[in-house]
Amino acid sequence: MIRLDDVQELVKPELAEFKRRYDEAIKTGKSPIIDQVVRFLAGKRGKMLRPTLTYLSARLLGESNERTHFAAVVVELLHNATLLHDDVVDGSDKRRGMPSLNAIFGNKISVLFGDYLLANSLLAMLECGDTRVFEVLARTARRLAKGELDQAARSRNLDMDEETYYRMVSNKTGALVAASCVLGGLSNRADESQVEALRAFGEALGVAFQIQDDLLDYTGKESILGKPVGEDLKERKITLPLIHAFAQSDSQDVREIKRMVARPKLGELRKVARFAQERGGVDYARQRAREFSAQALQALEVFPDSQVRRLLHDFSSFAVERTH
Amino acid sequence: MIRLDDVQELVKPELAEFKRRYDEAIKTGKSPIIDQVVRFLAGKRGKMLRPTLTYLSARLLGESNERTHFAAVVVELLHNATLLHDDVVDGSDKRRGMPSLNAIFGNKISVLFGDYLLANSLLAMLECGDTRVFEVLARTARRLAKGELDQAARSRNLDMDEETYYRMVSNKTGALVAASCVLGGLSNRADESQVEALRAFGEALGVAFQIQDDLLDYTGKESILGKPVGEDLKERKITLPLIHAFAQSDSQDVREIKRMVARPKLGELRKVARFAQERGGVDYARQRAREFSAQALQALEVFPDSQVRRLLHDFSSFAVERTH
Repeated sequence: MIRLDDVQELVKPELAEFKRRYDEAIKTGKSPIIDQVVRFLAGKRGKMLRPTLTYLSARLLGESNERTHFAAVVVELLHNATLLHDDVVDGSDKRRGMPSLNAIFGNKISVLFGDYLLANSLLAMLECGDTRVFEVLARTARRLAKGELDQAARSRNLDMDEETYYRMVSNKTGALVAASCVLGGLSNRADESQVEALRAFGEALGVAFQIQDDLLDYTGKESILGKPVGEDLKERKITLPLIHAFAQSDSQDVREIKRMVARPKLGELRKVARFAQERGGVDYARQRAREFSAQALQALEVFPDSQVRRLLHDFSSFAVERTH
Repeated sequence: MIRLDDVQELVKPELAEFKRRYDEAIKTGKSPIIDQVVRFLAGKRGKMLRPTLTYLSARLLGESNERTHFAAVVVELLHNATLLHDDVVDGSDKRRGMPSLNAIFGNKISVLFGDYLLANSLLAMLECGDTRVFEVLARTARRLAKGELDQAARSRNLDMDEETYYRMVSNKTGALVAASCVLGGLSNRADESQVEALRAFGEALGVAFQIQDDLLDYTGKESILGKPVGEDLKERKITLPLIHAFAQSDSQDVREIKRMVARPKLGELRKVARFAQERGGVDYARQRAREFSAQALQALEVFPDSQVRRLLHDFSSFAVERTH
């Protein structure tokens, strides 16, 4: 079993510096509300998965440098802005096992603080001073927003095929994970083929990661995951386990299950989860996550074997083995 | 009485081109929800005040060019993103006299479409390809977000002094109006003193414009303004007319009026409005708006007299004379 701590060990000094810079980027000292929110969020820093990928990708090609730090900060700002808006959009009152910002400060402050993080990510980009970095980020931001819009628009639509699911997951998670890797590489002057390899690695890794996340909604324990099991289903989100189970079932069964998803009740959602499990949806999703993870590894083969590459391999394994 | 149409006449071809480019920037052809929202919003284009300022500022120094068009599009994208998020944050169901996006498509889509506009503004900035432009925009976006946060945080706080009011108005409206002018100038290689003059002009004009806007909440007609009179008061927004009236009154009167604002009832809000009027708050706000407008004009004196400069003068008069 791979532990995230072990993967992050090599870039521990970078991550410490990252925290300092991230906090520096968003504090003002002049706005009481911003300082309050910053203090609140400081207690709930995530696992820094994206910055870790940025630093490891940079280290494939040399040492971390100023541009790597800026890239890591920009990516995390963009990611956290997205999370704040997501929680408002989904009405989620938990995030990382603790009350979400919107649960404590309300939707207004969450929407606006998300915008504030976005604006700060612009300023950090500016300090990067590299048009290419900026281009990657602008395109990523657009894919993210488009992905979220497509997902929100589908929220009442229970017809979802596997292809649409992958496209949405790819826009939602693949895009930013890919950007994290690409920007790390660019900070050490990666050439075209290296950029493409990092993009392909991040994209596949992001999809693997998201499939696993969706899977944990069926199999995880609330206490570990920090989000109640079945949360996606309660929000009528149809993910891979159920998509596959539907594809294995006759239309009457599908209709019956969709009826339960359409008006979610707790007892019935257990039935839905069992249905996904029994029709092989859970196993299938697990297998697909591993395939994407393997695809990610393959993309890295343009880089010579090294300790850093092995850590990125471990990261991919972690993404699909984790139970939280 | 100055008509906006007359001010815009000179840059009519630019504004036509602007519309084309703006629509081009946000359409996708691939996402049904985006296309739906784009069609909805196309029917409610604003008065293009900011693009008008961008083009006129550029024309102070030469002809409009590619960079001017990009700047105009970026500014309007940023502005419209802010409006969408504002309407969600304020729970407003009207905008420009018609149902707001959130009233029709819900808060989710509004928040996410705002993000989508922001992402597109990044892409447009990228095409500008000028670090200076980018810096102006990043700083503007941050001031906007900070201003909105400070305002939201104060929403239950009825203690507001004139200085705080100007600071908030300046962050909320002055910042982006100033950016519109500065970017227009930069598109024609304005030098430092010209940039500073355009910044000062835009900043003062924006504040004048916003004071007038707040004033119209006391004096305007719903049918013209497209927003019900007293809307700010209903949201417990204390603006200049009331701030000034408070400063002229003894603490018992102030307490009584604040009690009415704290739990707004229609009949009582009329009393509040009358109080602001009778204590000279409406006249005072009108006078201050004119002073800011005059200050804006003065900033333009570094430019030689010309038709364009006279149109910018007219724009400043329009800002404080308009009744809607």
